[in-house]
Amino acid sequence: MKSPFDDNYFMQKALQEAELAFDKGEIPVGAVVVIKDRIIARGHNLTELLNDVTAHAEMQAITAAANFLGGKYLHDCTLYVTLEPCQMCAGALYWSQISRIVFGARDEDRGCINLKTTLHPKTIIEGGVMADEASNLIKRFFIEKRNLN
Amino acid sequence: MKSPFDDNYFMQKALQEAELAFDKGEIPVGAVVVIKDRIIARGHNLTELLNDVTAHAEMQAITAAANFLGGKYLHDCTLYVTLEPCQMCAGALYWSQISRIVFGARDEDRGCINLKTTLHPKTIIEGGVMADEASNLIKRFFIEKRNLN
Repeated sequence: MKSPFDDNYFMQKALQEAELAFDKGEIPVGAVVVIKDRIIARGHNLTELLNDVTAHAEMQAITAAANFLGGKYLHDCTLYVTLEPCQMCAGALYWSQISRIVFGARDEDRGCINLKTTLHPKTIIEGGVMADEASNLIKRFFIEKRNLN
Repeated sequence: MKSPFDDNYFMQKALQEAELAFDKGEIPVGAVVVIKDRIIARGHNLTELLNDVTAHAEMQAITAAANFLGGKYLHDCTLYVTLEPCQMCAGALYWSQISRIVFGARDEDRGCINLKTTLHPKTIIEGGVMADEASNLIKRFFIEKRNLN
């Protein structure tokens, strides 16, 4: 029997977080941290609400996961995030020594791949999981925002 | 008359923050954010105490400064930090659009300069202000830590 817990399953959960950001008028990016098929942390972008550039979905999920684990390293954890992490978030993930990062949509301009942010040697990064869903949500956000102004 | 408020003055304040980190058993790095010769935010490394890799001095100072200003952009602000910012902190400073970063000691291995983190085009970065004081404090921390173990 196929396990229900695959990358799409957890990315769907990250997308639900992104939708919470959308509903608050935030750029819709969401993240979850998973260890052994269990979600231990959730986060969504809150930079506008908190007036804080550091309040990206990943940063909050990293902090919450470390809090759950009682230690600052995210060994054996996977972060699912709907958008490719930026330099700040990738830099935080470097320090966390996380095992795996799975992102949805690419961020060609501000993502960690093109900006060549150094990840920890223990970390694997993969992208493109439910990328269309993630980028469509962001596109819809900016279209609605433009129509409101 | 020479202004008492020069880079050394504010770096001294950042060093006082670093000493607070030292006293708590944290790698001693401190930061302050200044606008028009006024300190609006302070922070020191709390990664061990908070079990949180994101709790660098700069991250806390950025959040506190934005809170003080009531907006997330740190235009016209200078961040003084005793150690060259890492990728995460430089990435956060990118988003903040801060005007100026002044650091003390270089961090050849994990600092944003050698790791080529992209800063905002509006941001100037300068280093070497009270670098010996900053690096001596960090050296003393690791010597004492080694002797305790």
